[in-house]
Amino acid sequence: MRAAIFNGPHDITVADVSDPSITAPTDAVVRVVLACVCGSDLWFWRGQTPHDNDGTGHEFIGVVEAVGSAVTAVREGDFVIAPFAFSDGTCPNCLAGIQTACVNGGFFGGNGVDGAQAERVRVPQANGTLVKVPAGTYDDATMRSLLTLSDVMGTGHHAAVSAGVTPGDTVAVVGDGAVGLSAVLAAKRLGAGRIIALSRNPSRQALAREFGASEIVEERGDDAVEAVRGLTGGIGADAALECVGTDDAVSSALAIARPGSTVGYVGVPHGVELSVPDMFYRNVGLKGGPAPVRAYIPELLEDVLAGRIDPGRVFDYETDLDHIADAYRAMDERRAIKSLIRVGAI
Amino acid sequence: MRAAIFNGPHDITVADVSDPSITAPTDAVVRVVLACVCGSDLWFWRGQTPHDNDGTGHEFIGVVEAVGSAVTAVREGDFVIAPFAFSDGTCPNCLAGIQTACVNGGFFGGNGVDGAQAERVRVPQANGTLVKVPAGTYDDATMRSLLTLSDVMGTGHHAAVSAGVTPGDTVAVVGDGAVGLSAVLAAKRLGAGRIIALSRNPSRQALAREFGASEIVEERGDDAVEAVRGLTGGIGADAALECVGTDDAVSSALAIARPGSTVGYVGVPHGVELSVPDMFYRNVGLKGGPAPVRAYIPELLEDVLAGRIDPGRVFDYETDLDHIADAYRAMDERRAIKSLIRVGAI
Repeated sequence: MRAAIFNGPHDITVADVSDPSITAPTDAVVRVVLACVCGSDLWFWRGQTPHDNDGTGHEFIGVVEAVGSAVTAVREGDFVIAPFAFSDGTCPNCLAGIQTACVNGGFFGGNGVDGAQAERVRVPQANGTLVKVPAGTYDDATMRSLLTLSDVMGTGHHAAVSAGVTPGDTVAVVGDGAVGLSAVLAAKRLGAGRIIALSRNPSRQALAREFGASEIVEERGDDAVEAVRGLTGGIGADAALECVGTDDAVSSALAIARPGSTVGYVGVPHGVELSVPDMFYRNVGLKGGPAPVRAYIPELLEDVLAGRIDPGRVFDYETDLDHIADAYRAMDERRAIKSLIRVGAI
Repeated sequence: MRAAIFNGPHDITVADVSDPSITAPTDAVVRVVLACVCGSDLWFWRGQTPHDNDGTGHEFIGVVEAVGSAVTAVREGDFVIAPFAFSDGTCPNCLAGIQTACVNGGFFGGNGVDGAQAERVRVPQANGTLVKVPAGTYDDATMRSLLTLSDVMGTGHHAAVSAGVTPGDTVAVVGDGAVGLSAVLAAKRLGAGRIIALSRNPSRQALAREFGASEIVEERGDDAVEAVRGLTGGIGADAALECVGTDDAVSSALAIARPGSTVGYVGVPHGVELSVPDMFYRNVGLKGGPAPVRAYIPELLEDVLAGRIDPGRVFDYETDLDHIADAYRAMDERRAIKSLIRVGAI
């Protein structure tokens, strides 16, 4: 099969590799229909974090081609969504809804686990991992939205859940990438009364507004903090969602959250140093991590299929597997919010 | 009147100073009946943090002696509990239940605000601050418990609330001082199913058990983490309550909290440096700060008066105002969990 191979910073190629096969009774093999590039993939693309050449990409939807003898939750021919992490669904952490801490789990794309930027993926712990999409014919917009349930939409939702967004809240979102935009949509879905999106990019601002943002703050750093405080009577937001992962973004999120609130953070932290006294004296909490998107797929899937949310609109660039390097470049150069990769027919 | 004066590390004396008086229409003057020494007072006592000589102590119950023209919530002769922070009760932060972030608030004991280790205290923002205790005659055990509502009991409760303790939870408590012990009691009161108290002091262990601890862990540091994980199937506690404020204590609390849970922290942080990636990848949150005990007094008062909780048992040393230095020494040398100061008759 064809699969993306990471050779080093700014160097991804596509090569013929062996097809994956069932290696454990709990495995499934999924033929990929749609995959994409994640903002977190850019860290290794840019050489900012190490990455092996075992595989890249961790977001995909596709069709089950084979299952191991212990797999009962899905079968050959099922159209499925794969969360970016695999999990057994039965350990205490899975039962607590934190599948990204599954004691038998792991992450797709590297470290010996297949990547999703490929024609096929071996899925460990298929019973706990894969979610079957009801049989049907889905238009392209729906397919794109289903793909976001693999990561970004669930990750934005996790930011909102971690921050404890409740109906009527004023929510501030730091980050206007695909996750930040998804967080806007998630906050709106959870009933936020006002959503303040921090963005200085006109097309991202437009999508943020369509997803539910009521106000846009274009400033950065201390000026952004001032602006959000100005919009909230000097007090701060009821919830701040941090969707970047840099020290500046986390600092800003903590500073714009009102006393007693929580910053929900889902941007993979890079060089973040917290001022504990500042957090403590303002009673501002911090909670988040790799989103247990597996826990969220059922409810989000229902809303996608009912047409209540349309998170697939974050994809504004697309190509095929052979041109995957272009997909990375478009995101790296901020020409694209998020790049879709058309891999196979459904 | 007589009042404690902080002269420098390990040097507190009692002197005659001017009586406080009403300086703003929102003030009250309270004659102190009981006061005490807080674990956080030991930081300046030991010279680890600066402190001026404006006054010491921030926990007291007493009788209202005078009120300003704008004070309607209490009147002369009322027996009242004062939270360690004053607050107007009407600003957005107070309305959100975070009175320790009141925009017109502040803390007793220093920086120009009267201390509670004195015969009288000027209470700013008396309407929002003071809570009237129903008229009645209270025995000494009840009086001691009422005094804990000024700080430690509410602070332990804040740790439990910040960590989101819910019925049936397994809760681990780091710190066996008065706040840690109060946190055990608070967790029990909120319905925790198991409470693991970290303590190596036999008398504190005994009180922890009486307050509701089901298990005691005597180990420290990494060994304590191992022990708690061993008691929780390798997963960790559903909630960890950090009641010390040192880097070690916060690290331990984060490490013994299960993925997806929150560490409630109320120990004033000193030199705490967080490993953000460790928190993030385990989805362990951190939330807390100076407890808005004013918000909690009504419900805790009801339980104290009904005899359902007896937090005053944390006081195991007592003296009078003239001997306040002994009260500090007893705590500093860990001969006492918490020192009560008998200041005046009710």
